[in-house]
Amino acid sequence: MKAEHINPFLVAVSNTFSTMLDCEARRGEIALVSSGTKLFPISGVIGLSGMAAGTVVINLSKEVALKAASAMLMMNITEINDDVIDAVGEIANMVAGQAKAELEEYNLSVSLPNVVTGEDHAIRFPSDAKPIGVAFDTDFGPLRLEVGLEPIAQTAGA
Amino acid sequence: MKAEHINPFLVAVSNTFSTMLDCEARRGEIALVSSGTKLFPISGVIGLSGMAAGTVVINLSKEVALKAASAMLMMNITEINDDVIDAVGEIANMVAGQAKAELEEYNLSVSLPNVVTGEDHAIRFPSDAKPIGVAFDTDFGPLRLEVGLEPIAQTAGA
Repeated sequence: MKAEHINPFLVAVSNTFSTMLDCEARRGEIALVSSGTKLFPISGVIGLSGMAAGTVVINLSKEVALKAASAMLMMNITEINDDVIDAVGEIANMVAGQAKAELEEYNLSVSLPNVVTGEDHAIRFPSDAKPIGVAFDTDFGPLRLEVGLEPIAQTAGA
Repeated sequence: MKAEHINPFLVAVSNTFSTMLDCEARRGEIALVSSGTKLFPISGVIGLSGMAAGTVVINLSKEVALKAASAMLMMNITEINDDVIDAVGEIANMVAGQAKAELEEYNLSVSLPNVVTGEDHAIRFPSDAKPIGVAFDTDFGPLRLEVGLEPIAQTAGA
């Protein structure tokens, strides 16, 4: 993907955390995702399609997922339950929704969010997609953003 | 999701396995996905969006993933490597692509495929999405299809 296309997603993560969760999220270095990067155990995943096809992964440490869900639901949640899963999906949805508005040229729409859990899970992109990854340090703990987005070849009837 | 919308995906799985892989795939019972269903260790995931939003998960046992990649690449592959990851993504892509053609009323487009790995991984849908799951028994071994698809409310500018 083009490096400049990561910016709307970076801004969307910071905005979502500050406005929804009253939590500051500070971004680290931008780098190409190398296959097999160790992930935190909870990922919100949302597909993007339109004039480009892609995926946003917002990968959360357990502490960030629990504190974010607690903030959204205004209650103290201490284990990964369906409320946390829905909260993580909603965060992915908000990040993708804000970013797509900034990427008007691709006329993107979003899939349903899914939430992947598992201590050893990995989420791979197609080998030709060259996704970009960014670590964030937040007041709730660490998280990671990965985005792959490729313009699609337009064919009749596509 | 509506039960009748699962059919294009069932047909697409059988067609993809028979035409691409020369492998018969026999479907089992159709059921609502219950949260926490134990999955096989490799999942091809692809987002759908348009007048409906959804996700297709094609969840493969290791033996199916290896045999499918071996058939696609015409070589004997014995471990999960990047070729297998790409093959599983391509299978998800073909299943989603065939199914969307049958669901014209939603004018669906597809995201990039992702491949999730991990012995204990789980892929959760939003709690209001009511995804449908179907087990398949194939000549290569067992696999599982899960699909969630919800019409989206149309708003100005959406």
